[in-house]
Formats: sequence, structure tokens, C-alpha cells
Amino acid sequence: MPHVNTTTKPWAGRFNAPTDAFVEAFTASVDFDRRLYRYDIQGSIAHATMLARQGILTQDECEAIVSGLETVRTRIDDGDFQWSIPLEDVHMNIESALTALIGEAGKKLHTGRSRNDQIATDVRLWLRDEIELIREGIERLQATLLELAEREAETLMPGFTHLQVAQPVTFGHHMMAWFEMLERDCERLADCRRRLNVMPLGAAALAGTTYPIDRQYTATLLGFERPAENSLDAVSDRDFALEFTADAAILMMHLSRFSEELILWSSAQFGFIELSDGFCTGSSIMPQKKNPDVPELVRGKSGRIFGHLMGLLTLMKGQPLAYNKDNQEDKEPLFDTVDNLKGSLKVYAEMMGEVTCNRARMRAAAAQGFSTATDLADYLVRKGIAFRDAHEIVGKAVALGLREGRDLAELTLDELRAFSTAIEADVFAILTLEGSVAARDHIGGTAPAQVRAAIARARHRRANR
Amino acid sequence: MPHVNTTTKPWAGRFNAPTDAFVEAFTASVDFDRRLYRYDIQGSIAHATMLARQGILTQDECEAIVSGLETVRTRIDDGDFQWSIPLEDVHMNIESALTALIGEAGKKLHTGRSRNDQIATDVRLWLRDEIELIREGIERLQATLLELAEREAETLMPGFTHLQVAQPVTFGHHMMAWFEMLERDCERLADCRRRLNVMPLGAAALAGTTYPIDRQYTATLLGFERPAENSLDAVSDRDFALEFTADAAILMMHLSRFSEELILWSSAQFGFIELSDGFCTGSSIMPQKKNPDVPELVRGKSGRIFGHLMGLLTLMKGQPLAYNKDNQEDKEPLFDTVDNLKGSLKVYAEMMGEVTCNRARMRAAAAQGFSTATDLADYLVRKGIAFRDAHEIVGKAVALGLREGRDLAELTLDELRAFSTAIEADVFAILTLEGSVAARDHIGGTAPAQVRAAIARARHRRANR
Amino acid sequence: MPHVNTTTKPWAGRFNAPTDAFVEAFTASVDFDRRLYRYDIQGSIAHATMLARQGILTQDECEAIVSGLETVRTRIDDGDFQWSIPLEDVHMNIESALTALIGEAGKKLHTGRSRNDQIATDVRLWLRDEIELIREGIERLQATLLELAEREAETLMPGFTHLQVAQPVTFGHHMMAWFEMLERDCERLADCRRRLNVMPLGAAALAGTTYPIDRQYTATLLGFERPAENSLDAVSDRDFALEFTADAAILMMHLSRFSEELILWSSAQFGFIELSDGFCTGSSIMPQKKNPDVPELVRGKSGRIFGHLMGLLTLMKGQPLAYNKDNQEDKEPLFDTVDNLKGSLKVYAEMMGEVTCNRARMRAAAAQGFSTATDLADYLVRKGIAFRDAHEIVGKAVALGLREGRDLAELTLDELRAFSTAIEADVFAILTLEGSVAARDHIGGTAPAQVRAAIARARHRRANR
Amino acid sequence: MPHVNTTTKPWAGRFNAPTDAFVEAFTASVDFDRRLYRYDIQGSIAHATMLARQGILTQDECEAIVSGLETVRTRIDDGDFQWSIPLEDVHMNIESALTALIGEAGKKLHTGRSRNDQIATDVRLWLRDEIELIREGIERLQATLLELAEREAETLMPGFTHLQVAQPVTFGHHMMAWFEMLERDCERLADCRRRLNVMPLGAAALAGTTYPIDRQYTATLLGFERPAENSLDAVSDRDFALEFTADAAILMMHLSRFSEELILWSSAQFGFIELSDGFCTGSSIMPQKKNPDVPELVRGKSGRIFGHLMGLLTLMKGQPLAYNKDNQEDKEPLFDTVDNLKGSLKVYAEMMGEVTCNRARMRAAAAQGFSTATDLADYLVRKGIAFRDAHEIVGKAVALGLREGRDLAELTLDELRAFSTAIEADVFAILTLEGSVAARDHIGGTAPAQVRAAIARARHRRANR
Repeated sequence: MPHVNTTTKPWAGRFNAPTDAFVEAFTASVDFDRRLYRYDIQGSIAHATMLARQGILTQDECEAIVSGLETVRTRIDDGDFQWSIPLEDVHMNIESALTALIGEAGKKLHTGRSRNDQIATDVRLWLRDEIELIREGIERLQATLLELAEREAETLMPGFTHLQVAQPVTFGHHMMAWFEMLERDCERLADCRRRLNVMPLGAAALAGTTYPIDRQYTATLLGFERPAENSLDAVSDRDFALEFTADAAILMMHLSRFSEELILWSSAQFGFIELSDGFCTGSSIMPQKKNPDVPELVRGKSGRIFGHLMGLLTLMKGQPLAYNKDNQEDKEPLFDTVDNLKGSLKVYAEMMGEVTCNRARMRAAAAQGFSTATDLADYLVRKGIAFRDAHEIVGKAVALGLREGRDLAELTLDELRAFSTAIEADVFAILTLEGSVAARDHIGGTAPAQVRAAIARARHRRANR
Repeated sequence: MPHVNTTTKPWAGRFNAPTDAFVEAFTASVDFDRRLYRYDIQGSIAHATMLARQGILTQDECEAIVSGLETVRTRIDDGDFQWSIPLEDVHMNIESALTALIGEAGKKLHTGRSRNDQIATDVRLWLRDEIELIREGIERLQATLLELAEREAETLMPGFTHLQVAQPVTFGHHMMAWFEMLERDCERLADCRRRLNVMPLGAAALAGTTYPIDRQYTATLLGFERPAENSLDAVSDRDFALEFTADAAILMMHLSRFSEELILWSSAQFGFIELSDGFCTGSSIMPQKKNPDVPELVRGKSGRIFGHLMGLLTLMKGQPLAYNKDNQEDKEPLFDTVDNLKGSLKVYAEMMGEVTCNRARMRAAAAQGFSTATDLADYLVRKGIAFRDAHEIVGKAVALGLREGRDLAELTLDELRAFSTAIEADVFAILTLEGSVAARDHIGGTAPAQVRAAIARARHRRANR
Repeated sequence: MPHVNTTTKPWAGRFNAPTDAFVEAFTASVDFDRRLYRYDIQGSIAHATMLARQGILTQDECEAIVSGLETVRTRIDDGDFQWSIPLEDVHMNIESALTALIGEAGKKLHTGRSRNDQIATDVRLWLRDEIELIREGIERLQATLLELAEREAETLMPGFTHLQVAQPVTFGHHMMAWFEMLERDCERLADCRRRLNVMPLGAAALAGTTYPIDRQYTATLLGFERPAENSLDAVSDRDFALEFTADAAILMMHLSRFSEELILWSSAQFGFIELSDGFCTGSSIMPQKKNPDVPELVRGKSGRIFGHLMGLLTLMKGQPLAYNKDNQEDKEPLFDTVDNLKGSLKVYAEMMGEVTCNRARMRAAAAQGFSTATDLADYLVRKGIAFRDAHEIVGKAVALGLREGRDLAELTLDELRAFSTAIEADVFAILTLEGSVAARDHIGGTAPAQVRAAIARARHRRANR
Repeated sequence: MPHVNTTTKPWAGRFNAPTDAFVEAFTASVDFDRRLYRYDIQGSIAHATMLARQGILTQDECEAIVSGLETVRTRIDDGDFQWSIPLEDVHMNIESALTALIGEAGKKLHTGRSRNDQIATDVRLWLRDEIELIREGIERLQATLLELAEREAETLMPGFTHLQVAQPVTFGHHMMAWFEMLERDCERLADCRRRLNVMPLGAAALAGTTYPIDRQYTATLLGFERPAENSLDAVSDRDFALEFTADAAILMMHLSRFSEELILWSSAQFGFIELSDGFCTGSSIMPQKKNPDVPELVRGKSGRIFGHLMGLLTLMKGQPLAYNKDNQEDKEPLFDTVDNLKGSLKVYAEMMGEVTCNRARMRAAAAQGFSTATDLADYLVRKGIAFRDAHEIVGKAVALGLREGRDLAELTLDELRAFSTAIEADVFAILTLEGSVAARDHIGGTAPAQVRAAIARARHRRANR
């Protein structure tokens, strides 16, 4: 096995043989963790500032480090930085560049910390920002849904259970169901952000450090709520990654359900809505095709995020404390989850802003399938019949309608009265779609007035967030 | 295909042919959902009470229903109830028994609701209670850990990274790391409970109901914070099940990590602790064996819970709104998750109360493996050497120790000074285990004083919960 | 902690304290592994027979054991057996009953084996049989599909991609796609069965045994292809469980896809098929509902099986050799997978035998959506236009049709010629649905002749299996 | 929403508005599917060759296409190719370049096919090759294990169950357990390769094509066993990806178990082996550390692959036939699975070639923990005592040993005879480690002679593969 190794490792003192070249590439993380560079530098600046305040660095050393790190950051920002695989990771690449830049003082930056607490800090800083962006993405999509719900608050469509026509609902009401799902996603992410906002730095390798550090001060500099309570836990904990990925999985499950409905509604058979051309693509062989690619792709991406969650749970489940190399595998799934979440939310917000409702098709679909049968049963209850008996009576009327190919409103009063003499001429008013939705007039119900009230409450909540 | 069917279905009116007998058993849920009977009855009583207050039922009907339901509950409590597969589920079994008991009024109970909002309500009521029990289970385990941490606050053991000896820590510190993980679990479950405490009842099948119901009142009766905002969402949402199972998966991941360590520590090679006989079993063939069955089994159970989470995510991901029969598959994994969580926490709390520490073995293990090498590097930094250079110097001293089979404290002053003349006679004090842990004296550090302070803070937090 | 323990454990010699009662229940497996009793007894009989042949047992001892085990089996068959939790598992329950029955000889049965190789053998014997039953279940469903495909070989329906109408296909062709998926499932299970048919017995606890056993002979008695090559592997290997569960997950994914289509096709919007009443249920509130419960439930069950696969992978991933208690957790997911697979296949075979095709609705749906646009492009190619240009021309004709609300066949020749003068009067023949499907006349194509040929090949394959 | 779009889509004819620029990037696959370019070109060459043979292309057109495609391939090989996002995928990028190169004939290449059957063909061709490389990787690792097993065929170590010392085994025997696991992996991959070697090409979009294609001929050109039987199935089937990923997950589970053991064995507490420096790394803070990074990382990667499997199952589970855009999400997990598998196998084969066994430590560990207790029980059975009674007797002797801190071989004959007078002076021979392993002398047993025989059989099998 040929050994090729041109860079001295920061830990080489104790070793007799260099790292195998393939192993070096196989175990290096710089290809993906360099994405954290801004957070790594932010953390290092806070660390150096604290070290100087505690007299562990001189003020001059601290200034050299801070300005050196800012130079490195600018270089990376500008694409003017040479990343090195032999230097393993983002931390060593940056520290190495710093030392090349400012000399001796650079070698002092790592005093009182370890890459174990450093990476845990970097990832938390990064994810804290990303969660904000994701929540903004959710809120943009919610704003679009509120507008759509308001516009279509009276638009009638069939509500389904078991994909069978159940009762008429309004399209606005349906959109508000999606809004509610996203609302819970937002709350879950807020809880996750609060819980992750705890600082590992100061845990050093696993046991804390012998230097007189001030963790509370570093935490304040970095905007963390408090330092982590236990050093062993601080370097081995990845709960925040799991909780975030679980939240992401639930969110993607929601988007997958939305997608399922958009795809159905865009089919020729449903024809309830049309997605705008900008969100669809065609076929290389079939000239007539207009495919709802965006919802299909988002639906597909849900599996990817579920997979990342499973991967991360598996990753953590058997590890003894404290840090193990296994943990390096936490970053790629996390990065991919964030990217796909942000992309999916962005594309969804834009797409939903351009949805066209085919109100006539929806109304016609709602008028079929005996969607007001429950209203008839409720009518009978108001006439004094027990609900179970009313249900049975209407079931028989439906059976007649099915045999004859007519909906309930198309049966004659005599035909209806053959099932129950409690039915009178006023029945036809309650068999209309408008009557049906208007009657569901309580909080959470599909009546247009309730939908508008729900929109108003939602706007109020958002304004006071 | 022979059709055998002896019971009239509550929805049979519209059907021409009875359900196939195998299909009946295949689709019935009563075998498992009857576990919810107390919550189903609780929900029905609140529903009936509200219906009476709104004038939808008479007071007499309501009283008959309530007392009838209480009779049914007692019968089920006493094992004096005949569950029927043809009646499909817990709801229809109970309603059917009620009507048999009180006659006509029983048929009115289902007014203004559907099994769709009913089951969603039942499961939330049940899970709300179970979360309380699980949190109690966590707190019991935490209390045991606090006692153990206090007792072993000064007990020295090797801290590991990569399962290689890293630095000395105290056993109490290690136990407090576990405590912290459980603390987050507790918080996550509290968030989950808060979010699930919203009432679906009133959503009826999917669109709300035409009766003048008062959902706020029912919510108050059932201890829900508020009624769900949207009826379509209320009947199709299973986020609470997913969030709970994700929390459960993270908790089981923690217990799996604890188990991994207990199993390691119980091995002849580590020999750090002994589990008491009551938590171990023997071998049918090897007479000398004492196996740590309990932690092994708990470790194994983590996979089971991860699987349930995966199953539930998959279950929900493609469903259009509102209710689909797929959702029936949510209950068995949820029940199994709760049972295994409670059992694992209970057995862990008892087991940890009887753990015996082998302090001598742990101390001896900490004294090997150059565990104070970092202390030597920190010493050199205090003598004015940059950390990176200090690290290199100590690495070379370690290499000598490895070649000679001696630890750092066993090298002579001259040998050490060959690596750096900054080393002086005072070095040997910092190479002791006690000195090493005592020096990590900041919040989160392993110094016994810090461990005791952390225990005190933890107790304070718990007392003020 | 109160210790309650009334039964002497087979391994108690080395222990000072009895097992905690809750621990006993928590770690016992007899509640679920007793399901394996017939296979446990089958394995024991073969083991005893081999021991006698090798002179390790006397012939009398062997006969007493065999007849005793048969008595125990009969008792269990008859429900006349008291299972005991303190006896932990199926093995000890049976051995204990045997010894109670036949005395001293019973204590000799466990000579040269361990529960570690015994349980591995039991599960393989059981799963070998279950795989046969599952394959029979697949074949029954396939037979139903072949009949349906034959009956509907000329039935026109729209073929979809992206759930948009793509090209006309025949219903028979679509059913044969399902057939092919099941064919691969069958093959995968056959491979799995072949690979699992290797005997662990003789591995004893982990290292083999000091008795002069003849593993080849026992393997022959039990119908295994050969004894396992390595004792450590034999007791710790659960690959067969994983491979089976992976095969099961793929099979359930297929059934979930079938279900998705059946649910779509049963919706009012598609209306392509009707499931018979025996496979549907109604609603407790909406009298008109007829819900496709069976496909919905099977679709839901796919998540459950995916979860079991995930659980088993997680279970195995971190275990050092050889047997660990974690492995006890392999059985419940395996049992549940088998039960749900067999149930789903059975209910599917029956349901598909009673599907009614709504040929008119399907034909009408195929006639919409420009489903023969590709045929027009191919027509142009045959007239000498490059495919990419032809695609462009037809795309423009479709755009006209969309604007005008007319399908391609409804445009006039002049209108069509405005896009390309290559179009002539013969174009209308190729724009018919019948022409379109008949033209796809190659192996795998949707032409009715090809569907019939595929059915014939499938029947031939099955007959020669 | 700004629309930026500079390239005409191949399907643009029917559309009014261009694709949104973000949507274009979000839905494009060329960033990852360009990896398939060699297979895409191979498939296109075979397709064109068949079209020419059938008279659908002229011979000149075919030659232009083939030589054009070869030019494109060379350019891509040389990094001299501009990939375009607006051209969506590898297929359109290549076709577009071809047409730019050879003009009109390029537009005819897509005759009688679709991207749906094209991508399915590309992935199968690619994966077929990758499976070969993975199998070579497995065989290299197996060869290393055989050498190691042979070298250490007599090396004594403790065999563990429940991580407690169970019975002595040989290190060679343990390595052969790993060999067996890999053997099954190899077989599973061979089955997977056989099953995937079926050609989708000719299925076109979903229904076949109207051109007189010869699929058998194309299949022969591409080395496929046969064309797929059903066009709908051919374009929507991803079973091969699932089966491969399931096989990969099981393989990674094996490597994770190997890793678990290597990490344990490398710990100071076990000290059984030493990994060579080239496969370990150090610490940025602790100068003495030598961490087994490679096995840790491989163990961590198992979760990643499990996640991909779950993601793919979820992806497929709800899709109606035939192709949906969701399927685009199949490639990245598949690519990542292949890369990580090959890397893990390569690094493992190299690492295992350099493992150093610490025979003295292993032998000493085997001599502790009463590892020959089973041998004593077997001895008693040979003296006429029933196994269950023998087990009880030895259990008591072990309890004495534990109290006194002596192993069985360290008890006196009188002490042993106090438990059973059947024990005589010859007992001490069977209590030796060498005697214990040598006595397990049957196929699969740990006796060195059996290990050597197993190695010989394994070599024979491999030679005849």
C-alpha cells in the first residue's frame, strides 16, 4: 500500500506511519463541512475574545487572530482560498491559513477547546440561521395560502374521505387545512431552535478544560441562551439534528400530501385546478403532455428526508460517550435536508401563487355523489328521528338514487317520503350545496363565514408573532 | 366466496351485499382499539353533555346516555363485556351496547359527530395521559441518576472518545450527561403534549356539522386547550402521533446509548460496574454466564421504535385529505411505542438504583492510556508555549512512553525535559488523575465541585417544574 | 424492589438473587415465541434422533424423548398446555413439560446444543414454511390477474404518466404490469428461501460442541440443504430475516401501488372500476358512502412493513458476535410481517376476482387528453420528418386543440395541414384509440395480441415452475 | 416572478409560458445524472443500430449518429463538454450536442423511444457494472480475511455472547464468521444482478411504440438477458434499485458489526488487536490519541445506507403507473450507496491486511471468565450425568470460583469433587483452552483443524465461482 502524504497532521507527534492516502480522502470532511466556514470563524472570534478577556491570550494576540480570521473569511467569500484534503476539515484548514497569515498567535487559538466542541458549536450556529430561513419559507407559503383561501372562500368543491365524495366544502376551507399543518411545523421548528440554542463550546474534548474560561461570556457573544450543562453531553449530543430532521420529515410529509392533492386535482379526471406552465414540464415523446413536475418532485423528496432521519437515528443509537468518528456522518444528511426543505418551500410558495381554480368543474363534482346525504340525515334528526334511524333511511334513499342514476335532490318529494313521511317540501333547500356548507357554521366548520373568520384569526396570530 | 355476516352494519342501508367475513376481520380494529374505551366513553359523555346544553338532546336523554355509558365502562373494566368483530371498532361496540341498554336515546349519541373526529379525539385523550406517565418514568430514572451521580461525584474513570482513553472524568459527571439527555426528552414531550392538546371533536366527518354545537364547551369539559381550527385538518391530522413517536425514538436512542455503555462496562474487559443479579439472566448451556439482558433488550427495542416512526411517516405521506382507512394503521405502532417506552424506563430506573461501581477498576483504567497528556500540553501553554507546539511536544513524549511501556507520570523529569526544558518538577502534580479532574473547574466541567453544583441546579430545576 | 420468583431457572446455579418479577416479564419471550412450538419440537426430535444415532443418547432415551415431545405437541395443539412466563421462552416451556412427562431422559435433550442455535433453527424452519404459503398467496393473486387480463385484453383505458393522460393502453396490459411485479416478488422469495435453508443447529452456544455430533445427518432430517459453515456466524446471523423483510417491503410497496390505482379508479372522478360491496365499508355519518377500505388498509400496511425492515436493520447493526439479547426483538416484527403479507395477499386475490370494469368510462377517458398525439408524431416521422421536428409540429396542433377545446381527431384536415403539409387524409385512422394500441405490436407492447401472447407466456412459465 | 429561459425545451410546442428559472434548476437532474453518460451513449448506439437494421434509420444516418455519439463521449471523457441546466438531463444534453454535431440525423435518434425507457435502461447498465465492482471489492476483502484466518487459525481468544466471556474460540474461526457473512452478500448481489439484467428499452413512454422495433436484438447488443415483458412495468419499475439498496444495507450492517468489534478490540480494555497507523488519526487536543477512525466511519455510514433504502421504499410506495417525476429522486441515493459501499470495502480490505493480533492479551482474556465451564458440564455428561444436572453442578462450582476469585482450573480436585464425585483427576485436561477448542471438532466448530478445513472449502468455492 503506497503512502502518499505531504502535509504534517496537527496530531502527528505520536504516530510512526503517515495516513494512507485513500484513507485520508475517505475520512476527510472538508469537502462538505467547509460550508460551515462563516460559523467556524464566528465561533473562533468569540472564543479568542473570551480568551483575551480572561488573560489567556494577550490583547495583541486576540486582535491578530480576529483580524486574521476576518481576512480568511473574506478570502473564502471571494473564492480565493485553497481547501486541503490532508488538513481534514474546515477547522484545520482555517487554523492553518490563520497561522500562515499571522504566525505564532495563530497556534494559540485552539487553546482550551477541541474540534469536538468546535464542530458542535459550528453546526448549531449554522442550523439556528437555517431554521430562521425555513420558517420564513413556511410563512411565505402560508401568506400565499391565506390569499388563495380568501379568494376562494365561497368556491364549492367536493370534500373527500376515502377519496369518495363525502360532503361539499369550500376550496378556501381546504387551503386553510394546509395552513394549519404549516402552522404546527412552524411551532415545532421554533421549539427546536430554542432547544438547540445552547453552547457546547468549553466542553473541549469531553471533560472541559484546565484554563479559566468564561463560558457564559462566550455564549453571550454568540447569542446562545446558555452554555451546555455537561461537557460529555455537549460533545456527543446530536439531539438537535434529530429533532430538526424529525420536524423536517413531518413538514415534507405535509408537502407530500399537498402534492398528492395537486396532482389529483390537475388530472384530466378531476380537473379542479390548473398549475401555471412555469411549474410544469413536457414530454420528450408525447407532444401533448403538461406534467405537474414540481409537486411530483416534492412528493418524491419526502422519502429522501425520511431516509435522512432514519440514517441519523441509526447513526447515534449505539455510540458510547463521548465523541466518535461516526458523528462525522451527521452533516451531509443535515445539509441535504436543509437544502431540500428550503427549495421545496420556495417553489411551493411561488407555484401556489399561480394556481387557477376551475370553479365550474369543482362545483359540478360536488353536486354528484350524494354529497348532501348527511344534511338529509341531520334534517330528519331535527324532525325528531334518532340519528341512527335517520342514517338508515337516507342510506335507502341513496340506494334508490344509485339504481336510478339520480342524486338526492333529483328524487321527487313522493319518492323521498316513501322512505320517511317526516320529509316535507322544505327538504330541497337543505339539499343544495350552498345550504350544506353554510349550515356548518361553527368554529372549524366549512361555512364561508367561518373560513373568513379563520383567515382573520390566522392573520392576527401572524401579526402578533 | 362465502359471505357470513350476522350483524347489521350501522352503514348498511346503501349496500347490496354483506361484507366478506375475512374482509370483516381484516379491516376490523376492535382487537386493538378497544384499549381506548375509557377515553371513548369520556369523549361521548362530554359530547352528550354539550348536546344537551345546546338543546340538541333533552336532559333526560343526556342523563340516560351518561349513566348508560358509565355502566358500559364498568362492565368493560370488570371484563364483563363481549367485544364483537362485526361491530368493527371500539366506537360501534360501545354505542351498540349503550343502545341495547338504554334504547332510543342511545341512537342519538352520534348526532353531530363522526367516527372520524371521535377516534382522533380518543387517541389524543389517551396519549395525553400516557405522556404524563412517560414523563413520570423519565423523572424517576432521573432521580436515580442524581443519587448515583452524587454518590460517585469523585469516582474517577477514564473518559473516552473513539472508545480510546481520552481524559479522566468522574463517574458522577458521566451520569449527569445521561441526566441531561433525559432532560431534553422531558422537554420535548412537554412540547408535544401542549401541541396535541387541541380538540378535533366537532369536525364531524370532515366539514363540521349542521347542529348548533359549542366546541369550546366540549373542549373545556375534556381539558383541551381549544378546539381545532379546521375540520378537514382535524380529522386527517396525525402530527401528534408522529411528533410523539419521533420524541420516543430519540428517547430510545438515548437508552440505547446508555445500554451500550452498561454492556461495555459490565464486560470482563472493562469491569467498571456490576448490574445486580435481578436484572441479568444466565445461559441454558454455559453455567458461568451472567448476561446483562436488560440493557441488551432495551438497546434492541430502539430499532423497534425507529421502525414505528418510519412506518407512521410512510403511512401519512401520500394521503389526500381528509380521512382515509390507512389511518387505522396508526394505532398499533403508537400503542407498542408507549408500552415499550414505559417498560424500558421502569426497568432502567430500577436497574440503575442497584448498580455497583467497581471504583478500583475504573481508577486503574483511568491511570492508563496517557489520559493526562492534555494536562501536560496545557501546562506547557501556561509556561508560554503555543498550544500547537505544546501538542507536538507531548505527542513525542507519548511516543516514548508507548515504546517503553510507561505512562507520562512514569517518565523521569530528565526524560520529559528532553522534549522541552519548560518542564519542571511541578509537572508531576498536574499529571495526577485527581489534579486533572479538579482543574476542569468551570460550568459543565468534570471537577467534582462542578458535578455537585450541576446536581444542585438539576434538583432546583425539578423542584420548580 | 420486591422479588417474586416461584420457578427455578435452568441457569440459576451461579446466581445469588432471583430475577426481579417485572424484569422477568419484560425479558420473557414466551408470549410471542410460543408460536414456534411445532418447529421447536420438530428440531428437538431431529436433534434427539441424531444424538441416539451417534450413541450420545440411548435408543430408549431417544424414544422416550420423541414420544414425549409428540405428546407435548398434541397438548399444545389442543390448547391443553400451561405456558409459563418464568420459564422464559418456548424452548424451556417445552423442555420443562417434557421432563415432567418422561423424567430423567428429558434432562438429556439439551445435550450438545444451546438455545442460541435452537432458536435460529426454529425460526428458519418456520419461515421456510411461511415463505411457501406467501408464494402460494402470490400465485393465487397472479392467477386472478391473468383471468382479468384475458377478459379485458381489448378494454381501452388511458395510460398515464405523471397522472396525466399519456397514451391509450388496454386494461389487460395494465393488469399484466402488476403480474410482472408479483413475478419478481416470487423470485426474490425463492432466492431468500434457498439462502435461509441452511442449518444452525450444532453451533451450540457459539463455538460448536464437544460431543461427536453429525450435523449433516440432522440437516437431512430437517430438510436443510447443509449445516452452516461457521458456528459464530450461525448463532448471530439474522440475514435471512432481513432479506425476507426486505422482500416483503418490496412486495407491500407493489400492493400499495396497486391500491393507489384501485382507489383512484374507484373515485367518482375516474369511475373506471367498481369494487364489490363485500370489500368496502360505509360511514357512520354519511349514508351514501362506499369506501374502498381494503386497498386503503393494504396501502397503509406498507408503512408498517417498511418500519419492521428499518427496525430489524437497526437491531442488527451494532451487535458484536455472537448472540446478544437484542436478537430477541427479531421475532415480533417478523411474525407481524408474515401475518400482514398473507392477509393482504388473500384479500387482494379475492377482491380482484370481483372487480367490475366500467369499460365505457375508461374508453371515454382515453379519448380525451390528446392521447394519440404520439401516434401523430410517429405518423409524421413515417412521412419523412425528423422525430424532434414532428414532436414540435404536434405540440403546436395540441396547443390549438387546447385553445379550441377539441381533441386532435376533432380538428379538420385543413387545420392539421396548417401545421404540416405532410399530413394527409389517412391521418384519421391513426388517431383512433384502437389504431393506437394495435400499432404497439411488439413484445411488451400494449397491442391486444401482445397482451394475449404475454398471458400465454406467463401461463407457460407458471406451469413449468 | 422573473422568467429567465434561454434554451428551447424539446417539448415546448404545447406551452404558453417558459419554465420559471428556479423551477428549472429545482427540477433538472443533469447535475447528478450526467454520471450516466457512458451508459446513455452505449444505449443510444445500440438503439440506433437496431433502428437501422429495421430500416427505420438509413445506414448513413446510423453511422453519423454512432460516430457523433462517440465524439460526444470522448469530449465528456476529456472534460471538454458544457453541461446545460436548461437542457434538464443527461439525455437532452447529449442529444442536443449530437444534433449540433451531425445535424438532421441527430433529431432522429429519439425515434421509437422515450426518456422513460431510456433512463431505466441507463441506470440498469450502470448498476450492472457497479455490482461487478462491488463484488470484486467483497472478494478482495474476503481474500484478506482468509489469509488472516489461516495465520491465526490457532490463536486463542474469548468467544463472547452478551459481551460476556462465553467459550474460547480461535481468532481464525472468528474471521471466518465474517467471511461467511460476506459470502451471502456476494450471493445476494449476484441474484440482484441477474434480476436487473432485463431491458426496458422499447417500452417507450409507457405503451411501446408504433415502429417495427426488434427489442430482442437491442437486448443482445447491450448484453441484457431479455427485453422486459411489459411496457408499463418497464418504465415504472425500480425494484432493482430497491433490491440492490436492501442488499447494500445488509452488507453495511455486516461492516458495521465488524467495525463494532474492531473498535472494541482496539480499546485499551480489550487490547486484542492493533490497527496500523495509516488507518487511524489523532486528536487536535489530546496528544496521546490514536483513534480507529476507519471502522468508526464505516459504522456511521451504515445509517446512511439504511436511510437511502427507506427513502427509496417511501419514494415508490404510492405511485400509480407509469412514470412519475418522483422517480427522479431515485438516482442520488443510489449513487451515494454505490460510492460508500465501494469506498468502505476498499478501505476495509486494506486495513484488515495490516491488523496486528496481540495474541498474549487474547489468550489471557480467554483464560478468565470461566470460559471452559461448558466443557466441565460436557465432561460430567460423559460421566453419566444428565445435562441439566451437570449444568447445575457447574453453576455452583462457578459461584464458588467467583467468591474466591479463582477460575475453574484453579480449584482443587477436592473442591471440585465437593460438587460432584463424578469429577476425577482427568478433568484438568478438559479445562485447558487448547483442549476446549480442539474438542469442538465438527463442521462449523472452532477447532483449528475445522477452521483450516473451512478455509480450504472457501478457497475451493471461490476458485470454482
